[in-house]
Amino acid sequence: MTDTKASAAAAVIRSLSDHFGERLATSEAIRAQHGRDMSRLPAALPDAVVFVESEDEVRSVVASCFAHQVPVVPYGAGSSMEGHTIAVAGGISIDMSRMNRIVAIHPEDGDAVVEAGVTRKQLNAHLRDTGLTFPIDPGADASLGGMASTRGSGTTAVRYGTMRENVLGLRVVRADGTVIRTGTRARKSSTGYDLTRLFVGAEGTLGVITEVTVRLHPIPECVASAICAFETVEGAVNTVIETIQLGVPIARVEFLDDTAIRATNLYSKLGLKETPTLFLEFHGSPAGVAEQSETVAAIAAEYGGSDFAWSTKEEERSRLWQARHDSIYSNKALRPGCDCYTTDICVPISRLAEAIGDAKADIATSPLIGKIIGHVGDGNFHIAYLIEPDNVAELAEAERLADRLVERALAVGGTASGEHGIGLAKLKYLRPEHGEAVDTMKAIKAALDPTGIMNPGKLGQAG
Amino acid sequence: MTDTKASAAAAVIRSLSDHFGERLATSEAIRAQHGRDMSRLPAALPDAVVFVESEDEVRSVVASCFAHQVPVVPYGAGSSMEGHTIAVAGGISIDMSRMNRIVAIHPEDGDAVVEAGVTRKQLNAHLRDTGLTFPIDPGADASLGGMASTRGSGTTAVRYGTMRENVLGLRVVRADGTVIRTGTRARKSSTGYDLTRLFVGAEGTLGVITEVTVRLHPIPECVASAICAFETVEGAVNTVIETIQLGVPIARVEFLDDTAIRATNLYSKLGLKETPTLFLEFHGSPAGVAEQSETVAAIAAEYGGSDFAWSTKEEERSRLWQARHDSIYSNKALRPGCDCYTTDICVPISRLAEAIGDAKADIATSPLIGKIIGHVGDGNFHIAYLIEPDNVAELAEAERLADRLVERALAVGGTASGEHGIGLAKLKYLRPEHGEAVDTMKAIKAALDPTGIMNPGKLGQAG
Repeated sequence: MTDTKASAAAAVIRSLSDHFGERLATSEAIRAQHGRDMSRLPAALPDAVVFVESEDEVRSVVASCFAHQVPVVPYGAGSSMEGHTIAVAGGISIDMSRMNRIVAIHPEDGDAVVEAGVTRKQLNAHLRDTGLTFPIDPGADASLGGMASTRGSGTTAVRYGTMRENVLGLRVVRADGTVIRTGTRARKSSTGYDLTRLFVGAEGTLGVITEVTVRLHPIPECVASAICAFETVEGAVNTVIETIQLGVPIARVEFLDDTAIRATNLYSKLGLKETPTLFLEFHGSPAGVAEQSETVAAIAAEYGGSDFAWSTKEEERSRLWQARHDSIYSNKALRPGCDCYTTDICVPISRLAEAIGDAKADIATSPLIGKIIGHVGDGNFHIAYLIEPDNVAELAEAERLADRLVERALAVGGTASGEHGIGLAKLKYLRPEHGEAVDTMKAIKAALDPTGIMNPGKLGQAG
Repeated sequence: MTDTKASAAAAVIRSLSDHFGERLATSEAIRAQHGRDMSRLPAALPDAVVFVESEDEVRSVVASCFAHQVPVVPYGAGSSMEGHTIAVAGGISIDMSRMNRIVAIHPEDGDAVVEAGVTRKQLNAHLRDTGLTFPIDPGADASLGGMASTRGSGTTAVRYGTMRENVLGLRVVRADGTVIRTGTRARKSSTGYDLTRLFVGAEGTLGVITEVTVRLHPIPECVASAICAFETVEGAVNTVIETIQLGVPIARVEFLDDTAIRATNLYSKLGLKETPTLFLEFHGSPAGVAEQSETVAAIAAEYGGSDFAWSTKEEERSRLWQARHDSIYSNKALRPGCDCYTTDICVPISRLAEAIGDAKADIATSPLIGKIIGHVGDGNFHIAYLIEPDNVAELAEAERLADRLVERALAVGGTASGEHGIGLAKLKYLRPEHGEAVDTMKAIKAALDPTGIMNPGKLGQAG
């Protein structure tokens, strides 16, 4: 950090210290905790962390940072996957976790207004007994502000959409400390530029989201889950393609390759056959769920699926989906002590079998272990390459594989990330994917954050 | 028009005339046709109309307009409802109707890539035999570029969403003549600012959309329709609220008030009881459609609905929905020779009965006839006030009623337009609805169209 930068940060810290007291932290430990995320990327520490409790506090922190030209890095649950919260230029990390009030639930309208630090599990716990649920499920217990900022989604997007479809409105503190409200509680609107969708996925580079209004969905009358094992990747993926094409409103359809099943068997003791497998979930009326399950079972049988068994028993379902969500922890069962190099891409579904097949071929000829799991109803899948910490050669090999994966995705009309985002790690893919549109993004960034204090070094500046 | 403006327009016309020949029209008749839309608003003529046939031609027209600082007004099917295509500052109207090529259909991926001038009926005719449909249905046979630009929707939005949810990507000619591509054919992406959603609903003020990639949906195995008459507005609306809350995936649910039914009886000879009425449609498997219909019939019965009869007969369905779509033409049956002052608002569904009730009370105490129809599953409804052409007092009265309607919608967290947009007529509601966020919209407009040539006097400048 240059002297000027250091003294500017010091000026902000001085300006905030009276008001925030112990909620303004400069200890190495807290800064280190906030200078990273769940990725393997090296940390970069903010100069201070401030634990805000209200929008007005966010406003005052941002205004002070704006006055002194000090970076602002919004921090939710720290569960992002591509380095979004790493403070590459130092500055102030705004920890939103204490802004965790449920502002309003409108059961009749099926929406909830929450502060940005509310997590999805907290919201769903609060919704108990309303008959409603917030189904977007990225795995981690992410904050809703963070999920909005990364345009998050997860296992249920095939049925309920992503944060793009489920955020109705926001409150945002802009770079100069002004506060705006976007969207309304109406289900649709044709008035004005869609600022809600602009801030959703902006990764904190255009402003700090302080409040999120999200759609809720009725808890389905009946839920069933199923597991189906396949001989081949193609068999599993073709089952999914045909299911989607027939318009079966499947709620979840997750692909796990043989390696992922092995990891899950080791970690979660499911005792499954180690072969490409689909985990499925159906939502609807009892008759609707039965009909969906039987339709998909028939399709699966055509493509070599075996032992398709569906069940409405809650324990079985919980065990299945817990194992799926624990996938990220199961990696160490395959290679104790490893780091994970994770990546995700999304392709048009017609190219999915090929994309997974090519990725598996790459892994087969590489010394690395790579594990594939995917939200395949959307054409989205993840790979975790298991690498030895601090092993430069293995990191380079994982990068080589990840680059090839993205190159092939872009070549077939796909995207460099289905749900993890750009963060730091994927900035290099922005221009290959979006071409000259990146300059339009930069123009928007320059218009809304002309001095570049909002999460600098990321979207809108680099790429 | 000032001399400078006139000579600038003349310079553009000169620069284009060699290439475009007869496709560059300056006749009064063609300019008059392009200087208006379907609203009652007075026309304002462009200096010329150019009938483009390729993106490269759009690019060259916009580049010439940029060089000479002449306004650009994109023109699709001319079916917008709030004055979007009125050339308030003159300039060049770019008629997109000849850019009507279907670029690609990807049946396996459920998407279509089309030039912006393709209309929804043209696309659906092309899709015949694919098992797929483009369900977004604003009534008029609008162009897909226009539907994207106005964030259009219609009767099926309750099930399939609006253009916001159904546009996957765009090609856009920006104000300086550069061309960008937004989005991908992947179903979801977390890479970069959501430029697709920024241009969707921008009403041609940020660029000219030349190509649209849209989602397609499987044609449902079974379709059923139903009509149900109610004693009261509340009965009809409460039936809808409970249907939505139960998660019944209803495909269409349209409300017609007693006046609308009277008009429809006169125009389409349906012979219905003149009382608040729902037109409904169900999509799914035969068993699913039966289940949905019976669920809604039971709810309707609770709320005083009578004669709920559902049918899967194609002729009955066609007759019903044709009558619904002809609603706009049926106005003259109520008051021969009248003009229509149309408006639409959208509110959280819990406030819908109240919003419709207040609107009806306003009409009851007004000398005007007002007719209410609504896409009530979204909380969206339309009013047509029937006014005598050139009657200033009646126009003022319609405006007074429309203002009150919007004021009440905003007071309950709704929006000034569910699907018609801002155009010219609703600019005055922009700041009451969006507050300081309007300045953020203006900053984006200034960044992407710094000299203000794109559809000037509308979104991003005024308001």
